[in-house]
Amino acid sequence: MTWLELADDTPFGLANLPYGVFSVGGAPERRVGVPVGDQVLDLTAAAAETAASFAPLLTAGVLNPLLAAGPGTWREVRESLTEWLTEPRYADQLRPHLVPLAEVTTHLAVEVADYVDFYSSEHHALNAGKIFRPDATELPPNWKHLPIGYHGRAGTVVASGTPIVRPHGQRKPRNADAPSFGPSQRLDIEAEVGFVVGTPGTRVSTADFADHVFGVCLVNDWSARDIQAWEYQPLGPFLGKSFATSVSPWIVPLAALEHARVDGPPQDPEPFEYLRTSEKWGLDLAMEIRLNGHLVSSPPFATQYWTAPQQLAHMTVNGASLRTGDLFASGTVTGPERDQRGSFLELSWGGREPLELPGGVTRTFLEDGDEVVIGATAPGPGGTRIGFGDVRGTVVAGG
Amino acid sequence: MTWLELADDTPFGLANLPYGVFSVGGAPERRVGVPVGDQVLDLTAAAAETAASFAPLLTAGVLNPLLAAGPGTWREVRESLTEWLTEPRYADQLRPHLVPLAEVTTHLAVEVADYVDFYSSEHHALNAGKIFRPDATELPPNWKHLPIGYHGRAGTVVASGTPIVRPHGQRKPRNADAPSFGPSQRLDIEAEVGFVVGTPGTRVSTADFADHVFGVCLVNDWSARDIQAWEYQPLGPFLGKSFATSVSPWIVPLAALEHARVDGPPQDPEPFEYLRTSEKWGLDLAMEIRLNGHLVSSPPFATQYWTAPQQLAHMTVNGASLRTGDLFASGTVTGPERDQRGSFLELSWGGREPLELPGGVTRTFLEDGDEVVIGATAPGPGGTRIGFGDVRGTVVAGG
Repeated sequence: MTWLELADDTPFGLANLPYGVFSVGGAPERRVGVPVGDQVLDLTAAAAETAASFAPLLTAGVLNPLLAAGPGTWREVRESLTEWLTEPRYADQLRPHLVPLAEVTTHLAVEVADYVDFYSSEHHALNAGKIFRPDATELPPNWKHLPIGYHGRAGTVVASGTPIVRPHGQRKPRNADAPSFGPSQRLDIEAEVGFVVGTPGTRVSTADFADHVFGVCLVNDWSARDIQAWEYQPLGPFLGKSFATSVSPWIVPLAALEHARVDGPPQDPEPFEYLRTSEKWGLDLAMEIRLNGHLVSSPPFATQYWTAPQQLAHMTVNGASLRTGDLFASGTVTGPERDQRGSFLELSWGGREPLELPGGVTRTFLEDGDEVVIGATAPGPGGTRIGFGDVRGTVVAGG
Repeated sequence: MTWLELADDTPFGLANLPYGVFSVGGAPERRVGVPVGDQVLDLTAAAAETAASFAPLLTAGVLNPLLAAGPGTWREVRESLTEWLTEPRYADQLRPHLVPLAEVTTHLAVEVADYVDFYSSEHHALNAGKIFRPDATELPPNWKHLPIGYHGRAGTVVASGTPIVRPHGQRKPRNADAPSFGPSQRLDIEAEVGFVVGTPGTRVSTADFADHVFGVCLVNDWSARDIQAWEYQPLGPFLGKSFATSVSPWIVPLAALEHARVDGPPQDPEPFEYLRTSEKWGLDLAMEIRLNGHLVSSPPFATQYWTAPQQLAHMTVNGASLRTGDLFASGTVTGPERDQRGSFLELSWGGREPLELPGGVTRTFLEDGDEVVIGATAPGPGGTRIGFGDVRGTVVAGG
């Protein structure tokens, strides 16, 4: 099936073939790469070597030219990759372009155009409502009619591994008379799934989703809850979110997620026509959040109320145009169980129920030096798993 | 003083020298231009002709390379322009590079990186609060402690003159049981002033404002009030704003606004240290809003509570980085008087007090075919006026 030696349980088997951007050693040159097993195929070099028609799309040091080329080209590149990695006659030609995964540095794969963050987990929205607005007992009145979202800061979307500097800002505890200024004392994560737009467009119907969206990554939408709580009325989150949003290194193409597609949860009331879907676009991703190496939560992405095609249709129904490189994220992924919550806000219930970690350590929000790693897998063909590269970040003290 | 023939009252005198991007006729080539009187100097050609050191910064069809070059280069270009346009020995060389203003098509001058919109007029915030939240009698509790802002959609910032397609979306009138879907029935403007970032940075102190901000333009933040009212809780405006934001064609450099600088209004309570300013950065811009040719409002920008250096310091105090091409806007500019309101929401008091126009015409919100033009002038040296190019847009029916 392949001339490569691949472990049966590799997250990067031939059914996955996600795309990223990497460099080796201290070399400044950034290349498009595809992880396979414990190696990365230098796709920029391989395409040049084989004189592939799409080779010119792979020389920019970001995926954007490939994203812009559209679904026909995405299929063509994936078919070529599959052929190269299965047919033994390519082995000698391509082996020199395989680099051990452990030796590469990954970079931001996409030059992000606009970044939109949704709020599409019913469990998260209910939890956040109860924690932030103690008198709230139910979802906001608009929540089941539309996927609530807002624009985030595209310029601070950063590569996995980028240190997260604790932000300073204004915050006002509920019992304080006046706000104070200083480092956030409620630094948090949001474990999310991100969707990368390839093809421009507007008023994208749910049926046209896969013609516009290239692939999927993991997102950690770092959040300073104290800054957010003080600033967010009436125009939404701003500095509580804008300091950093980390993304996983490899973009998993939609084609790799065929076996992960499931029905989303039933929707009641029935949404407006532009939000209805005939295809299954729930995604059965099993996410894991680790704090300093300890598993603290396993959010199930398939529980999201609004699916990505619905989010995209909503985002563009007003005529807003999409650009290549647009990134939209699901919102915090939280399941019904306590150990399925996608933020420390929820895991510690607003800081009132500290999380107990091995060694007698407890946590409410993040401390300096804490490392958070979010990973995910999805069902692949024949019982295999499709792996997402981890999105990781370590908190460092602010200046 | 100049070899050009300039009317005394021209908005584009030698003390102004704003920058934009234009083309002529149907030619696809976009050039950097500087309006002077009723002509535009083709700066791309003039810099090449004179072998100016900064000529390579002017060939991209957008201002971004010039913006990125920083304040030393901005000064150098302005000094060269002033010399060229005053010293008679340049007349023969440059005259061929002057194009009648009436013959040029202007384009988006800046490739916008992130777009942030503030909410810094006290009069507007009080009006909007009363109209949107009838039980609100005062400003939100955070309002006088920080300049409230949020991220908008950078990809739908459009050039002045771009038709504004009436957006469709969900809206729910207060007395309706359920939301409905259709064209916005409360399409509005927000007359604002925008600031264009040149030099990247983070944690930009108020004192360093002019090292990072290149110049100023006018912004019309088109707003669908019915869509906005239904969607905006709890994460802020999204589709009610993201369909289009128009900007004026010429970016007026800060250096042209020396005579417009005034103290901002007194601030009570005293803001946190990072928001304090020692220099005057209120700007005495006299704005005018015209609907189908009729003056409907004259908002005075100097009444804004939070100044641009305060907005920039706030936006970056959490460590968020700036990029070349970032645009931040003031928020709707509204003065204390009824004829100084910067939106039809306010001018018609939520639609309850229609505006009367000549010919027995009335308006609450915008109708298809309506043209809105926002202009502004600022004091220049010796009693002259510095003109901002108009930002204009005509509403067309949605598809």
